[in-house]
Amino acid sequence: MKLYETHTAPNPRRVRMFLAEKGITDVEYIQVDLAAGDNLNKDMRAKNPTTKIPFLELDDGTCIGETLAICRYFEEIQPEPPLMGRTPLEKAQVEMWQRRVEFYFMMQIGMCFQHTSGYFKDRMTPVPEWGSEAGKNAVAYMKQLNEHLASSQFLVGDYFSVADINLICALDFARVVKIKAGEDHPHLLRWYQEVSSRPSAQA
Amino acid sequence: MKLYETHTAPNPRRVRMFLAEKGITDVEYIQVDLAAGDNLNKDMRAKNPTTKIPFLELDDGTCIGETLAICRYFEEIQPEPPLMGRTPLEKAQVEMWQRRVEFYFMMQIGMCFQHTSGYFKDRMTPVPEWGSEAGKNAVAYMKQLNEHLASSQFLVGDYFSVADINLICALDFARVVKIKAGEDHPHLLRWYQEVSSRPSAQA
Repeated sequence: MKLYETHTAPNPRRVRMFLAEKGITDVEYIQVDLAAGDNLNKDMRAKNPTTKIPFLELDDGTCIGETLAICRYFEEIQPEPPLMGRTPLEKAQVEMWQRRVEFYFMMQIGMCFQHTSGYFKDRMTPVPEWGSEAGKNAVAYMKQLNEHLASSQFLVGDYFSVADINLICALDFARVVKIKAGEDHPHLLRWYQEVSSRPSAQA
Repeated sequence: MKLYETHTAPNPRRVRMFLAEKGITDVEYIQVDLAAGDNLNKDMRAKNPTTKIPFLELDDGTCIGETLAICRYFEEIQPEPPLMGRTPLEKAQVEMWQRRVEFYFMMQIGMCFQHTSGYFKDRMTPVPEWGSEAGKNAVAYMKQLNEHLASSQFLVGDYFSVADINLICALDFARVVKIKAGEDHPHLLRWYQEVSSRPSAQA
């Protein structure tokens, strides 16, 4: 299996951390230079029409795009340790927190970055005013995360999951737009220290 | 179980259609007036801090937010008929298409609506220029969907899934921003006719 990824981008890190937690090592990493547009050429579009990174190529040539779909594949072929929930309710709660972190925090940071930096201005139209609003949305959502983590070790009780992986990758990436948890977010900081200390966080 | 929903909104329809496909009928629907801000009062925030609709309340009071997390719960407690895939690869492919439709089409339409109509201007800052760009993104993605459906009955081969539910709810909602599939999208239109004819599409 080959994972096409960009080492500095937040979504590929989500997959690397997921694989590290599962102890899966038989994946070849292929680096893709996003700034140079390596993801946009004809061969790459044939494998991955959205051009989004990362994507996984199986040994038979089948390609799977979208970070969480890649994680889902590995969760199914190697269930242990489960990172997407163990019971029907827990699976729903993991998906709920995964999506909350993704929609109300990670995507807001991504849009803040793309629309205020102009990093991808050769392939999209940045709207700086929207980038600024998206950044404010991300900051506002940190308050909700902090309140939730006041009484919860991880995002879903005492169960470490893909939702926590999503949050730490988003929080670390948020530095590029100068957003970070501070003294207003003691519970989020407590959580951050705990998750950052896991070996998988270095993947 | 109670599902808090708004009948005219696209996300609640995704859950209703999912339940109709599964033949699940023991869910009480509670209507929430989003325009009046019924989702924003203290009691509702205690159940559902994001204030997003729909959310599910179990008989013990546990609440599950986020459309796909609600679907996941029902997929787990009543697996038949499976709507999220039957094999590891198919589960990944359903999640991939579900997310592509969600990120590159449905969310773009939602942002186009929110930022150009000012419908929620009492609780967010609309950026009309961004709304316009998001609408263009949605229109551009219809081309990719049309190309994919040229050789695929449903989004994932001949397997009807939650990804198709997502797409039809998004396409029907897109009319509010005057986006619809036309003669440039014959394969998407063929798919639309087929999925619209399912009884669940009336849910």
